[in-house]
Amino acid sequence: MQNNLKFEKISIIGCGLIGSSILRNINKKEISRSITVFDKSKEVIDIIKKEKLCDEISRDIPSAVKDSDFIILCVPLSSYKEILLSAKDHFKENAIITDTGSVKKEVNRIFENLNLKKISWLASHPIAGTEESGPAAGFRDLFKDRWTIICEGKNSQKDKVEKLKKFWEFLGSKVKLMSFEDHDHILALTSHLPHAVAYNIVMTAIDTDDKSKSDIIKYSAGGLRDFTRIASSDPIMWRDIFIDNSENLIKILNKFSRNIEDFKKAVSEKNGDKLLKVFATTKNVRKEIIKAGQDVKSPDFGRKKS
Amino acid sequence: MQNNLKFEKISIIGCGLIGSSILRNINKKEISRSITVFDKSKEVIDIIKKEKLCDEISRDIPSAVKDSDFIILCVPLSSYKEILLSAKDHFKENAIITDTGSVKKEVNRIFENLNLKKISWLASHPIAGTEESGPAAGFRDLFKDRWTIICEGKNSQKDKVEKLKKFWEFLGSKVKLMSFEDHDHILALTSHLPHAVAYNIVMTAIDTDDKSKSDIIKYSAGGLRDFTRIASSDPIMWRDIFIDNSENLIKILNKFSRNIEDFKKAVSEKNGDKLLKVFATTKNVRKEIIKAGQDVKSPDFGRKKS
Repeated sequence: MQNNLKFEKISIIGCGLIGSSILRNINKKEISRSITVFDKSKEVIDIIKKEKLCDEISRDIPSAVKDSDFIILCVPLSSYKEILLSAKDHFKENAIITDTGSVKKEVNRIFENLNLKKISWLASHPIAGTEESGPAAGFRDLFKDRWTIICEGKNSQKDKVEKLKKFWEFLGSKVKLMSFEDHDHILALTSHLPHAVAYNIVMTAIDTDDKSKSDIIKYSAGGLRDFTRIASSDPIMWRDIFIDNSENLIKILNKFSRNIEDFKKAVSEKNGDKLLKVFATTKNVRKEIIKAGQDVKSPDFGRKKS
Repeated sequence: MQNNLKFEKISIIGCGLIGSSILRNINKKEISRSITVFDKSKEVIDIIKKEKLCDEISRDIPSAVKDSDFIILCVPLSSYKEILLSAKDHFKENAIITDTGSVKKEVNRIFENLNLKKISWLASHPIAGTEESGPAAGFRDLFKDRWTIICEGKNSQKDKVEKLKKFWEFLGSKVKLMSFEDHDHILALTSHLPHAVAYNIVMTAIDTDDKSKSDIIKYSAGGLRDFTRIASSDPIMWRDIFIDNSENLIKILNKFSRNIEDFKKAVSEKNGDKLLKVFATTKNVRKEIIKAGQDVKSPDFGRKKS
């Protein structure tokens, strides 16, 4: 399969957790004659050099994208516009431009407004990551067995979609095509809602007197610590996600608040049957997720000593 | 330290995740001449026999507690009353009765109403557990480096508190004394709030059309799957916790809802600075939890392949 997958030059713009994990899969140059990286952070570039993740570091965006037939944006959503404005006159004809962002509709609007006729814009979203950020947190198997969603831009060419699909499969990912709108709806439910709530749980838990605050930290193993993990994800990335997907998120948070009200009612009425019904439903969802291979039964959350 | 810790007979009432994990630490009889177990479930007893966790299985509660100087209730909160009613006339004088439940004030009320004068009632709460339940899910190191909270009943004797403290330390736990009220307040924040919210996140996520539902499962790795883990904890246990601690929980859920409203406002106004401020606060709480040794930096939540 990989034999068909060949690029002249791959450009990775932004080299944090995602960009560096991609690099760790392609730096042997099996699928591209040359590979270049651009990152505006000197610190990031130092790590890439130190870990020998890429032998070609670009000085600026125009030289990074020049002659490249495959460009991958791995930057926060709020920097797409600026990057595309400096890149747009330097794109090679027929190049595939993709990204790795967590919201799609707003980003697609930016591309449509720029009206880049000579290139193929195809959005990608590898649903993979940890709460860590930066190139040192990346690892080769990040995408393995995870899903990557591809959304096709207007006038996408079939062979380009196929090539992008093969690229993600080369990284170990499974691929699904989806519309921009469906993507943003599904991800609001599976990712943006849980993250939004995690921040608010932690904010609620620490909004207490100082005497209790140190106890909150001490006894966090009862559930809170798992939410603090989610709530410690990259701030810029999450600011951009919430703002770009605000419409879907607010709709879902409203629904969530209505569920919380129902739940409070059941608790205050001591309605055990209603609560058991809720728990049976949620336990079943867990089973389906494990069945679908999206989690393992014991992902070391119990912190067993090995 | 262990040398001073000696019992004549330890009785474990209820042998699920917690009870069986205690057994796995004491079945060599280093600290007690005899150990007995009672569980009303035949299935549970079969596992205990099969795994040779205890050589003495009691047929009923009166014989389980008879001659015992240390009785540990490891049962759902809703069964305390019934168990204590069948046990109360069979307790040995000066026996220590403790429990392992997650809510304390209501349980203490049951003990006070029974007015058991000859025994020492001391509540215990080992803050340890996984989403699994039942004796097969237990393991020896469950309590290691975790906190156990002890709440003293009226007229507790100092030497009994000290003995109970040593018992939990023998299991590897750190021990803190706390009032019943403080316990229920702190746990509502660190454990009951996160669990209540996890159930509601999962309920919200699956409340969508059937077409989306299978996508929700498929793409759950973006955050949802971690909440389904928490929301798959033992249903009876959590029904009892929410009902027993309803007053604290509802107060805190109200506060949480106000935070969600603030958050929605920031999102709809695209107030990035406000969001970044929230994220900085929550990231800091995470750091403090890691510093306090209550989580590790990478608890395999990113599911790196080993």
